[in-house]
Amino acid sequence: MQFDRNGLQVLDRAECLRLLGTATLGRVAVTADALPVILPVNFIMADDQIVIRTGRGTKLDAATRNSVVAFEVDQIDPMYHTGWSVLVTGVARDMTAQPELLHLAHEPARWAPEKASDGRLIAISADLVSGRRITTDMRVAVAQ
Amino acid sequence: MQFDRNGLQVLDRAECLRLLGTATLGRVAVTADALPVILPVNFIMADDQIVIRTGRGTKLDAATRNSVVAFEVDQIDPMYHTGWSVLVTGVARDMTAQPELLHLAHEPARWAPEKASDGRLIAISADLVSGRRITTDMRVAVAQ
Repeated sequence: MQFDRNGLQVLDRAECLRLLGTATLGRVAVTADALPVILPVNFIMADDQIVIRTGRGTKLDAATRNSVVAFEVDQIDPMYHTGWSVLVTGVARDMTAQPELLHLAHEPARWAPEKASDGRLIAISADLVSGRRITTDMRVAVAQ
Repeated sequence: MQFDRNGLQVLDRAECLRLLGTATLGRVAVTADALPVILPVNFIMADDQIVIRTGRGTKLDAATRNSVVAFEVDQIDPMYHTGWSVLVTGVARDMTAQPELLHLAHEPARWAPEKASDGRLIAISADLVSGRRITTDMRVAVAQ
């Protein structure tokens, strides 16, 4: 096991992708009106890509047009101080016209209520992925 | 009640601050090595400021030196499609030398295991705060 300078266990790429596949809710960081923004989004994994859906004309729509974005998923228990976090950094590309390239079994839901079919499919490549885990065992190990 | 263009309920400042006070875990978006990054952090509220702690020399340390950052807290039930999200955008300031200014009852925990007391206190002013809520009632209302 490898640990980072903060004492957190470093997860390998395979484990990061596996954990991404267990979740449906993530957060995407983009720049909107020159300010950093974090937005919660539903997503699915398809071909090692994060796929999210957004409505046209929204903040997320404008901010994900061929921009580099950060996408994070975590599952952390604040009470027991255990959990994991996976971070993906990549270019957000519009896949609306080519959904078949994603081999989608189903489309990701939007966090917002559904309106007319004005959705846009966005794929974020998981080329750059990193993850950390904190466990109770580790805390004991670090404390010793 | 006010709704945004996505059909989500817009929360007022007082409700956003109240919700921030109910949580202990958030995510901060910063720029590290010219790339966007999202990191989970423990925090406390003090005087309408988000207070987090980080170790010196870490990614979070470097990225929060008088930078504008985004900080997000949410509580979302992916199954029932309900929840809320609050976003704070502000300058991260170093409060390590003036912890008394924050009137801290207790310091925020670090997500990483505790090491030597190399921590740095960072305050993010919640001047710019916005929030959204999605409820089951709302979904019905929107669908009608």
